[in-house]
Amino acid sequence: MKVLVVDVGGNNVKLLATGHREVRKVPSVPRFTPARMVAAVRNATADWSYGAVTIGFPAPVRDGRIVKEPVNLGRGWVRFDFRRAFGRPVRIINDAVMQALGSYRRGRLLFLGLGTGLGAALVLDGLTQPLEIAHLPYRDGWTYEELLGKDALDEVGKKRWRRFVFEIVPRLQAAFQVDEVVLGGGNSKLLTTLPKGCRRGDNKNAFAGGFRLWSDAKPGRRRPAPRKSARARRRPK
Amino acid sequence: MKVLVVDVGGNNVKLLATGHREVRKVPSVPRFTPARMVAAVRNATADWSYGAVTIGFPAPVRDGRIVKEPVNLGRGWVRFDFRRAFGRPVRIINDAVMQALGSYRRGRLLFLGLGTGLGAALVLDGLTQPLEIAHLPYRDGWTYEELLGKDALDEVGKKRWRRFVFEIVPRLQAAFQVDEVVLGGGNSKLLTTLPKGCRRGDNKNAFAGGFRLWSDAKPGRRRPAPRKSARARRRPK
Repeated sequence: MKVLVVDVGGNNVKLLATGHREVRKVPSVPRFTPARMVAAVRNATADWSYGAVTIGFPAPVRDGRIVKEPVNLGRGWVRFDFRRAFGRPVRIINDAVMQALGSYRRGRLLFLGLGTGLGAALVLDGLTQPLEIAHLPYRDGWTYEELLGKDALDEVGKKRWRRFVFEIVPRLQAAFQVDEVVLGGGNSKLLTTLPKGCRRGDNKNAFAGGFRLWSDAKPGRRRPAPRKSARARRRPK
Repeated sequence: MKVLVVDVGGNNVKLLATGHREVRKVPSVPRFTPARMVAAVRNATADWSYGAVTIGFPAPVRDGRIVKEPVNLGRGWVRFDFRRAFGRPVRIINDAVMQALGSYRRGRLLFLGLGTGLGAALVLDGLTQPLEIAHLPYRDGWTYEELLGKDALDEVGKKRWRRFVFEIVPRLQAAFQVDEVVLGGGNSKLLTTLPKGCRRGDNKNAFAGGFRLWSDAKPGRRRPAPRKSARARRRPK
Protein backbone atom coordinates (compact mmCIF):
# COMPACT_ATOMS: atom_id res chain seq x y z
CA MET A 1 0.00 0.00 0.00
CA LYS A 2 1.15 3.51 -0.82
CA VAL A 3 1.54 5.69 2.24
CA LEU A 4 1.74 9.46 2.61
CA VAL A 5 3.89 10.52 5.55
CA VAL A 6 3.09 13.92 7.04
CA ASP A 7 5.77 15.18 9.42
CA VAL A 8 4.29 18.15 11.27
CA GLY A 9 6.87 20.59 12.64
CA GLY A 10 6.79 24.06 14.13
CA ASN A 11 8.04 25.67 10.91
CA ASN A 12 7.09 23.27 8.14
CA VAL A 13 5.05 20.24 7.35
CA LYS A 14 7.22 17.81 5.41
CA LEU A 15 5.66 15.34 3.03
CA LEU A 16 6.76 12.17 1.29
CA ALA A 17 4.78 9.33 -0.28
CA THR A 18 5.72 5.80 -1.23
CA GLY A 19 7.53 5.75 -4.57
CA HIS A 20 8.60 9.40 -4.43
CA ARG A 21 12.04 10.74 -3.58
CA GLU A 22 11.43 14.45 -3.39
CA VAL A 23 10.27 15.77 -0.01
CA ARG A 24 7.69 18.53 -0.28
CA LYS A 25 7.06 21.18 2.33
CA VAL A 26 4.22 23.42 3.30
CA PRO A 27 4.75 26.12 5.92
CA SER A 28 3.20 25.79 9.37
CA VAL A 29 1.46 29.15 9.39
CA PRO A 30 0.82 30.86 12.74
CA ARG A 31 -2.18 29.44 14.56
CA PHE A 32 -2.06 26.44 12.29
CA THR A 33 -5.23 24.38 12.66
CA PRO A 34 -5.72 20.77 11.57
CA ALA A 35 -8.22 21.77 8.89
CA ARG A 36 -5.72 24.21 7.38
CA MET A 37 -2.97 21.60 7.63
CA VAL A 38 -5.00 18.94 5.82
CA ALA A 39 -6.08 21.39 3.10
CA ALA A 40 -2.48 22.50 2.52
CA VAL A 41 -1.23 18.91 2.48
CA ARG A 42 -3.88 17.68 0.07
CA ASN A 43 -3.21 20.63 -2.17
CA ALA A 44 0.55 20.06 -2.17
CA THR A 45 0.18 16.34 -2.91
CA ALA A 46 -2.72 16.43 -5.36
CA ASP A 47 -0.60 14.60 -7.98
CA TRP A 48 0.47 11.85 -5.56
CA SER A 49 -1.59 8.74 -4.95
CA TYR A 50 -1.68 7.01 -1.59
CA GLY A 51 -4.04 4.72 0.26
CA ALA A 52 -3.09 5.58 3.84
CA VAL A 53 -1.58 8.40 5.85
CA THR A 54 0.88 8.58 8.76
CA ILE A 55 1.00 11.83 10.72
CA GLY A 56 4.05 12.46 12.90
CA PHE A 57 2.88 15.04 15.41
CA PRO A 58 4.76 17.21 17.95
CA ALA A 59 2.60 16.51 20.99
CA PRO A 60 1.82 13.51 23.19
CA VAL A 61 0.00 10.78 21.27
CA ARG A 62 -1.60 7.81 22.96
CA ASP A 63 -2.96 4.75 21.18
CA GLY A 64 -2.95 6.65 17.92
CA ARG A 65 -4.74 9.74 19.26
CA ILE A 66 -3.37 13.20 20.00
CA VAL A 67 -3.99 13.65 23.72
CA LYS A 68 -2.72 17.18 24.26
CA GLU A 69 -2.83 20.31 22.13
CA PRO A 70 0.59 21.17 20.66
CA VAL A 71 2.61 24.03 22.17
CA ASN A 72 3.78 25.64 18.93
CA LEU A 73 0.70 25.36 16.71
CA GLY A 74 -2.97 26.37 16.75
CA ARG A 75 -5.76 24.53 18.56
CA GLY A 76 -8.30 21.85 17.74
CA TRP A 77 -5.92 18.97 17.10
CA VAL A 78 -7.13 16.66 19.87
CA ARG A 79 -10.67 16.22 18.58
CA PHE A 80 -10.06 16.53 14.86
CA ASP A 81 -11.21 13.65 12.61
CA PHE A 82 -8.17 13.12 10.38
CA ARG A 83 -9.52 9.97 8.80
CA ARG A 84 -12.50 11.82 7.52
CA ALA A 85 -10.48 14.84 6.38
CA PHE A 86 -8.05 12.70 4.40
CA GLY A 87 -10.69 10.21 3.25
CA ARG A 88 -8.21 7.43 4.07
CA PRO A 89 -7.05 5.46 7.08
CA VAL A 90 -4.71 7.59 9.20
CA ARG A 91 -2.22 6.59 11.84
CA ILE A 92 -0.97 9.30 14.18
CA ILE A 93 2.27 8.94 16.05
CA ASN A 94 4.40 11.29 18.11
CA ASP A 95 7.04 12.86 15.87
CA ALA A 96 9.96 11.77 18.03
CA VAL A 97 8.59 8.22 18.12
CA MET A 98 8.32 8.26 14.33
CA GLN A 99 11.95 9.32 13.97
CA ALA A 100 13.03 6.82 16.59
CA LEU A 101 11.27 4.02 14.75
CA GLY A 102 12.88 5.06 11.48
CA SER A 103 16.34 5.27 13.08
CA TYR A 104 16.07 1.93 14.83
CA ARG A 105 18.35 -0.96 13.95
CA ARG A 106 18.40 -3.40 16.87
CA GLY A 107 18.56 -3.72 20.64
CA ARG A 108 17.61 -0.76 22.77
CA LEU A 109 17.60 2.77 21.43
CA LEU A 110 17.08 6.19 22.99
CA PHE A 111 16.19 8.84 20.43
CA LEU A 112 16.68 12.50 21.29
CA GLY A 113 15.42 15.16 18.88
CA LEU A 114 17.40 18.37 19.23
CA GLY A 115 15.07 20.85 17.56
CA THR A 116 12.90 23.73 18.70
CA GLY A 117 12.10 21.60 21.72
CA LEU A 118 13.49 18.30 22.92
CA GLY A 119 11.69 15.22 21.64
CA ALA A 120 12.47 11.81 23.06
CA ALA A 121 11.48 8.19 22.58
CA LEU A 122 12.65 4.67 23.30
CA VAL A 123 12.66 1.68 20.99
CA LEU A 124 13.12 -1.58 22.89
CA ASP A 125 13.35 -4.72 20.78
CA GLY A 126 11.24 -2.99 18.15
CA LEU A 127 8.63 -1.74 20.62
CA THR A 128 8.27 2.05 20.70
CA GLN A 129 7.70 4.09 23.83
CA PRO A 130 7.21 7.85 23.83
CA LEU A 131 8.97 9.91 26.49
CA GLU A 132 8.15 13.40 27.71
CA ILE A 133 11.34 14.26 29.50
CA ALA A 134 11.76 17.75 28.01
CA HIS A 135 10.11 19.46 30.95
CA LEU A 136 11.68 17.47 33.75
CA PRO A 137 13.94 19.65 35.87
CA TYR A 138 17.59 18.89 35.41
CA ARG A 139 19.75 21.41 37.19
CA ASP A 140 19.36 24.69 39.05
CA GLY A 141 15.72 24.88 38.02
CA TRP A 142 16.45 24.44 34.32
CA THR A 143 14.69 21.69 32.45
CA TYR A 144 16.31 19.44 29.86
CA GLU A 145 14.60 21.39 27.09
CA GLU A 146 15.73 24.72 28.53
CA LEU A 147 19.33 23.55 28.20
CA LEU A 148 19.16 21.53 24.97
CA GLY A 149 16.40 23.29 22.99
CA LYS A 150 16.62 26.08 20.44
CA ASP A 151 16.18 28.91 22.94
CA ALA A 152 19.20 27.73 24.89
CA LEU A 153 21.25 27.44 21.72
CA ASP A 154 20.28 30.96 20.62
CA GLU A 155 21.03 32.39 24.01
CA VAL A 156 24.26 30.69 25.06
CA GLY A 157 25.75 29.92 21.65
CA LYS A 158 26.94 26.75 20.01
CA LYS A 159 29.96 26.19 22.22
CA ARG A 160 28.15 26.11 25.55
CA TRP A 161 25.18 24.33 24.03
CA ARG A 162 27.50 21.56 22.85
CA ARG A 163 28.86 21.34 26.37
CA PHE A 164 25.31 20.82 27.66
CA VAL A 165 24.84 18.04 25.10
CA PHE A 166 28.06 16.34 26.21
CA GLU A 167 27.08 16.62 29.86
CA ILE A 168 23.46 15.58 29.64
CA VAL A 169 23.29 12.95 26.88
CA PRO A 170 25.64 10.45 28.57
CA ARG A 171 23.61 10.77 31.76
CA LEU A 172 20.40 9.98 29.94
CA GLN A 173 22.09 7.12 28.14
CA ALA A 174 23.06 5.64 31.51
CA ALA A 175 19.65 6.31 33.04
CA PHE A 176 17.79 4.54 30.25
CA GLN A 177 20.28 1.66 29.97
CA VAL A 178 20.23 1.64 26.18
CA ASP A 179 22.64 0.22 23.61
CA GLU A 180 22.80 3.42 21.62
CA VAL A 181 21.50 6.97 21.40
CA VAL A 182 20.44 8.61 18.17
CA LEU A 183 20.72 12.39 18.16
CA GLY A 184 18.30 13.75 15.61
CA GLY A 185 16.51 17.01 15.04
CA GLY A 186 17.78 19.96 13.02
CA ASN A 187 20.33 21.08 15.61
CA SER A 188 22.12 17.73 15.75
CA LYS A 189 23.95 19.00 12.65
CA LEU A 190 25.71 21.55 14.86
CA LEU A 191 27.57 18.82 16.71
CA THR A 192 31.00 18.26 15.20
CA THR A 193 31.67 15.28 17.44
CA LEU A 194 29.20 13.09 19.29
CA PRO A 195 29.28 11.61 22.79
CA LYS A 196 30.33 7.97 22.97
CA GLY A 197 27.65 5.48 21.98
CA CYS A 198 25.76 8.10 19.97
CA ARG A 199 24.88 8.15 16.30
CA ARG A 200 23.55 11.09 14.35
CA GLY A 201 19.98 10.90 13.15
CA ASP A 202 18.87 11.76 9.67
CA ASN A 203 15.67 13.62 8.94
CA LYS A 204 14.88 11.03 6.28
CA ASN A 205 14.45 8.59 9.14
CA ALA A 206 11.22 10.31 10.07
CA PHE A 207 9.75 9.19 6.77
CA ALA A 208 11.21 5.71 7.15
CA GLY A 209 9.44 5.49 10.51
CA GLY A 210 6.18 6.69 8.99
CA PHE A 211 6.33 4.03 6.29
CA ARG A 212 7.39 1.35 8.75
CA LEU A 213 4.25 1.99 10.75
CA TRP A 214 2.18 0.43 7.98
CA SER A 215 4.53 -2.40 7.15
CA ASP A 216 3.71 -5.90 8.28
CA ALA A 217 7.33 -6.65 9.03
CA LYS A 218 6.79 -6.47 12.77
CA PRO A 219 3.65 -8.40 13.62
CA GLY A 220 2.67 -8.34 17.24
CA ARG A 221 4.37 -5.01 17.90
CA ARG A 222 2.31 -2.15 19.18
CA ARG A 223 1.92 0.18 16.22
CA PRO A 224 1.83 3.48 17.76
CA ALA A 225 1.43 3.50 19.60
CA PRO A 226 25.94 17.25 36.76
CA ARG A 227 27.76 17.64 38.04
CA LYS A 228 26.48 18.59 41.52
CA SER A 229 25.90 22.24 42.12
CA ALA A 230 28.91 23.64 43.90
CA ARG A 231 26.99 25.96 46.14
CA ALA A 232 25.61 25.15 49.55
CA ARG A 233 23.15 22.31 49.15
CA ARG A 234 20.00 22.35 51.14
CA ARG A 235 17.16 19.98 50.50
CA PRO A 236 14.22 21.89 49.05
CA LYS A 237 11.22 22.49 51.30
CA MET B 1 10.27 -26.79 37.23
CA LYS B 2 10.85 -25.75 40.82
CA VAL B 3 12.59 -22.41 41.15
CA LEU B 4 14.43 -20.83 44.06
CA VAL B 5 14.14 -17.05 44.08
CA VAL B 6 16.96 -15.19 45.83
CA ASP B 7 16.18 -11.52 46.46
CA VAL B 8 19.44 -9.85 47.46
CA GLY B 9 19.03 -6.69 49.51
CA GLY B 10 21.30 -4.44 51.53
CA ASN B 11 20.10 -5.89 54.85
CA ASN B 12 18.80 -9.35 54.02
CA VAL B 13 18.67 -11.96 51.35
CA LYS B 14 15.10 -13.21 51.06
CA LEU B 15 14.38 -16.68 49.79
CA LEU B 16 11.36 -18.50 48.46
CA ALA B 17 11.03 -21.65 46.37
CA THR B 18 8.20 -23.06 44.28
CA GLY B 19 5.67 -24.85 46.51
CA HIS B 20 6.69 -23.07 49.71
CA ARG B 21 4.86 -20.24 51.42
CA GLU B 22 7.30 -19.21 54.11
CA VAL B 23 9.94 -16.67 53.10
CA ARG B 24 13.33 -17.32 54.65
CA LYS B 25 15.97 -14.71 55.28
CA VAL B 26 19.69 -14.65 55.72
CA PRO B 27 21.45 -11.43 56.73
CA SER B 28 23.59 -9.54 54.22
CA VAL B 29 26.69 -9.36 56.40
CA PRO B 30 29.10 -6.44 55.88
CA ARG B 31 31.36 -6.92 52.88
CA PHE B 32 29.05 -9.62 51.64
CA THR B 33 30.69 -11.58 48.82
CA PRO B 34 28.92 -13.82 46.31
CA ALA B 35 30.62 -16.95 47.71
CA ARG B 36 29.35 -16.13 51.21
CA MET B 37 25.90 -15.36 49.84
CA VAL B 38 25.65 -18.67 47.98
CA ALA B 39 26.91 -20.64 50.99
CA ALA B 40 24.38 -18.93 53.30
CA VAL B 41 21.54 -19.46 50.81
CA ARG B 42 22.33 -23.13 50.22
CA ASN B 43 22.59 -23.67 53.95
CA ALA B 44 19.25 -21.95 54.65
CA THR B 45 17.45 -23.90 51.91
CA ALA B 46 19.09 -27.29 52.34
CA ASP B 47 15.66 -28.92 52.84
CA TRP B 48 14.15 -27.30 49.73
CA SER B 49 14.42 -28.83 46.29
CA TYR B 50 14.67 -26.71 43.16
CA GLY B 51 16.00 -27.11 39.65
CA ALA B 52 16.75 -23.49 38.81
CA VAL B 53 17.57 -20.22 40.55
CA THR B 54 16.59 -16.60 39.98
CA ILE B 55 18.73 -13.94 41.62
CA GLY B 56 17.28 -10.44 41.98
CA PHE B 57 20.29 -8.21 42.41
CA PRO B 58 20.65 -4.55 43.46
CA ALA B 59 23.00 -3.40 40.68
CA PRO B 60 22.80 -2.96 36.90
CA VAL B 61 22.28 -6.28 35.11
CA ARG B 62 22.62 -6.66 31.38
CA ASP B 63 21.61 -9.74 29.39
CA GLY B 64 21.55 -11.75 32.59
CA ARG B 65 24.96 -10.62 33.84
CA ILE B 66 25.83 -8.25 36.68
CA VAL B 67 27.71 -5.43 34.96
CA LYS B 68 28.63 -3.24 37.93
CA GLU B 69 29.64 -4.03 41.49
CA PRO B 70 26.87 -3.21 43.98
CA VAL B 71 27.15 -0.09 46.13
CA ASN B 72 26.02 -1.60 49.43
CA LEU B 73 27.67 -5.04 49.38
CA GLY B 74 31.15 -6.54 49.06
CA ARG B 75 33.04 -7.07 45.80
CA GLY B 76 33.48 -9.84 43.26
CA TRP B 77 29.89 -10.05 42.00
CA VAL B 78 30.55 -9.17 38.38
CA ARG B 79 32.81 -12.12 37.58
CA PHE B 80 31.32 -14.72 39.91
CA ASP B 81 30.09 -17.99 38.38
CA PHE B 82 26.67 -18.43 40.01
CA ARG B 83 25.68 -21.38 37.85
CA ARG B 84 28.65 -23.31 39.09
CA ALA B 85 28.18 -22.27 42.72
CA PHE B 86 24.51 -23.31 42.75
CA GLY B 87 25.04 -26.33 40.50
CA ARG B 88 21.90 -25.31 38.63
CA PRO B 89 20.89 -22.91 35.87
CA VAL B 90 20.73 -19.37 37.24
CA ARG B 91 19.04 -16.30 35.85
CA ILE B 92 20.12 -12.95 37.23
CA ILE B 93 17.90 -9.90 36.99
CA ASN B 94 18.01 -6.43 38.48
CA ASP B 95 15.98 -6.41 41.70
CA ALA B 96 13.74 -3.53 40.63
CA VAL B 97 13.09 -5.27 37.31
CA MET B 98 12.14 -8.45 39.18
CA GLN B 99 9.64 -6.56 41.34
CA ALA B 100 8.33 -4.68 38.33
CA LEU B 101 7.76 -7.93 36.46
CA GLY B 102 5.98 -9.44 39.46
CA SER B 103 3.80 -6.33 39.88
CA TYR B 104 2.88 -6.09 36.21
CA ARG B 105 -0.70 -6.55 35.04
CA ARG B 106 -1.06 -4.94 31.61
CA GLY B 107 -0.18 -1.93 29.50
CA ARG B 108 2.73 0.23 30.52
CA LEU B 109 4.10 0.26 34.03
CA LEU B 110 6.73 2.31 35.83
CA PHE B 111 8.00 0.62 38.98
CA LEU B 112 9.73 2.72 41.65
CA GLY B 113 11.33 0.98 44.60
CA LEU B 114 11.47 3.26 47.64
CA GLY B 115 14.08 1.51 49.76
CA THR B 116 17.64 2.23 50.82
CA GLY B 117 18.15 3.58 47.33
CA LEU B 118 15.72 4.22 44.50
CA GLY B 119 15.23 1.32 42.11
CA ALA B 120 13.31 1.79 38.89
CA ALA B 121 12.12 -0.23 35.92
CA LEU B 122 9.63 -0.15 33.09
CA VAL B 123 7.40 -2.95 31.85
CA LEU B 124 5.97 -2.21 28.40
CA ASP B 125 3.56 -4.77 27.02
CA GLY B 126 5.31 -7.41 29.10
CA LEU B 127 8.81 -6.35 28.03
CA THR B 128 11.03 -5.28 30.93
CA GLN B 129 13.48 -2.41 30.80
CA PRO B 130 15.79 -1.49 33.70
CA LEU B 131 16.23 2.18 34.54
CA GLU B 132 19.04 3.85 36.46
CA ILE B 133 17.45 7.17 37.23
CA ALA B 134 18.42 7.28 40.92
CA HIS B 135 21.54 9.33 40.30
CA LEU B 136 20.14 11.75 37.76
CA PRO B 137 20.08 15.29 39.13
CA TYR B 138 16.62 16.53 39.90
CA ARG B 139 16.70 19.85 41.68
CA ASP B 140 19.24 22.18 43.27
CA GLY B 141 21.95 19.57 42.78
CA TRP B 142 20.00 16.81 44.55
CA THR B 143 19.45 13.55 42.74
CA TYR B 144 16.19 11.59 42.76
CA GLU B 145 17.70 9.12 45.20
CA GLU B 146 18.90 11.89 47.50
CA LEU B 147 15.32 13.07 47.84
CA LEU B 148 13.43 9.75 47.81
CA GLY B 149 15.93 7.31 49.37
CA LYS B 150 16.38 6.25 52.97
CA ASP B 151 18.95 8.92 53.86
CA ALA B 152 16.53 11.66 52.85
CA LEU B 153 13.76 10.05 54.85
CA ASP B 154 15.97 9.77 57.94
CA GLU B 155 17.14 13.32 57.61
CA VAL B 156 14.01 15.27 56.73
CA GLY B 157 11.37 13.03 58.30
CA LYS B 158 8.28 11.34 56.96
CA LYS B 159 6.27 14.46 56.31
CA ARG B 160 8.71 16.20 54.01
CA TRP B 161 9.73 12.92 52.39
CA ARG B 162 6.09 12.28 51.50
CA ARG B 163 5.97 15.73 49.96
CA PHE B 164 8.96 14.81 47.77
CA VAL B 165 7.13 11.64 46.70
CA PHE B 166 4.03 13.63 45.76
CA GLU B 167 6.08 16.16 43.83
CA ILE B 168 8.41 13.81 41.98
CA VAL B 169 6.36 10.70 41.23
CA PRO B 170 3.72 12.45 39.08
CA ARG B 171 6.51 14.10 37.09
CA LEU B 172 8.13 10.76 36.39
CA GLN B 173 4.76 9.28 35.53
CA ALA B 174 4.28 12.01 32.91
CA ALA B 175 7.84 11.73 31.63
CA PHE B 176 7.58 7.99 31.05
CA GLN B 177 4.02 8.11 29.64
CA VAL B 178 2.88 5.04 31.53
CA ASP B 179 -0.57 3.75 32.44
CA GLU B 180 0.31 3.23 36.06
CA VAL B 181 3.08 3.51 38.63
CA VAL B 182 3.76 0.89 41.26
CA LEU B 183 5.45 2.21 44.39
CA GLY B 184 7.29 -0.64 46.03
CA GLY B 185 10.20 -1.00 48.40
CA GLY B 186 10.05 -1.02 52.18
CA ASN B 187 9.36 2.69 52.55
CA SER B 188 6.27 2.66 50.35
CA LYS B 189 4.49 1.48 53.51
CA LEU B 190 5.04 4.95 54.99
CA LEU B 191 2.73 6.52 52.43
CA THR B 192 -0.79 6.87 53.81
CA THR B 193 -2.14 8.08 50.48
CA LEU B 194 -0.69 7.63 47.02
CA PRO B 195 -0.43 10.02 44.07
CA LYS B 196 -3.06 9.54 41.36
CA GLY B 197 -2.44 6.61 39.04
CA CYS B 198 -0.23 4.86 41.58
CA ARG B 199 -0.63 1.48 43.19
CA ARG B 200 1.32 0.17 46.15
CA GLY B 201 3.74 -2.66 45.50
CA ASP B 202 3.97 -5.75 47.62
CA ASN B 203 7.27 -7.37 48.50
CA LYS B 204 5.78 -10.72 47.52
CA ASN B 205 5.76 -9.41 43.97
CA ALA B 206 9.52 -9.75 43.90
CA PHE B 207 9.11 -13.52 44.20
CA ALA B 208 6.30 -13.56 41.65
CA GLY B 209 8.67 -11.82 39.23
CA GLY B 210 11.42 -14.31 39.98
CA PHE B 211 9.13 -17.25 39.24
CA ARG B 212 7.70 -15.56 36.15
CA LEU B 213 11.17 -15.34 34.68
CA TRP B 214 11.19 -19.12 34.20
CA SER B 215 7.61 -19.50 33.08
CA ASP B 216 6.88 -20.08 29.42
CA ALA B 217 3.82 -17.85 29.57
CA LYS B 218 5.53 -15.06 27.68
CA PRO B 219 7.37 -16.58 24.74
CA GLY B 220 9.34 -14.14 22.65
CA ARG B 221 9.86 -11.72 25.50
CA ARG B 222 13.38 -10.88 26.49
CA ARG B 223 13.96 -12.77 29.73
CA PRO B 224 16.23 -10.63 31.57
CA ALA B 225 17.64 -9.40 29.98
CA PRO B 226 9.67 21.36 39.80
CA ARG B 227 8.56 23.30 40.39
CA LYS B 228 11.08 25.85 39.14
CA SER B 229 13.55 27.15 41.67
CA ALA B 230 12.37 30.53 42.83
CA ARG B 231 15.82 32.06 43.05
CA ALA B 232 17.64 33.85 40.26
CA ARG B 233 18.04 31.45 37.40
CA ARG B 234 21.22 31.46 35.46
CA ARG B 235 22.12 28.77 33.00
CA PRO B 236 24.99 26.71 34.38
CA LYS B 237 28.44 27.14 32.80
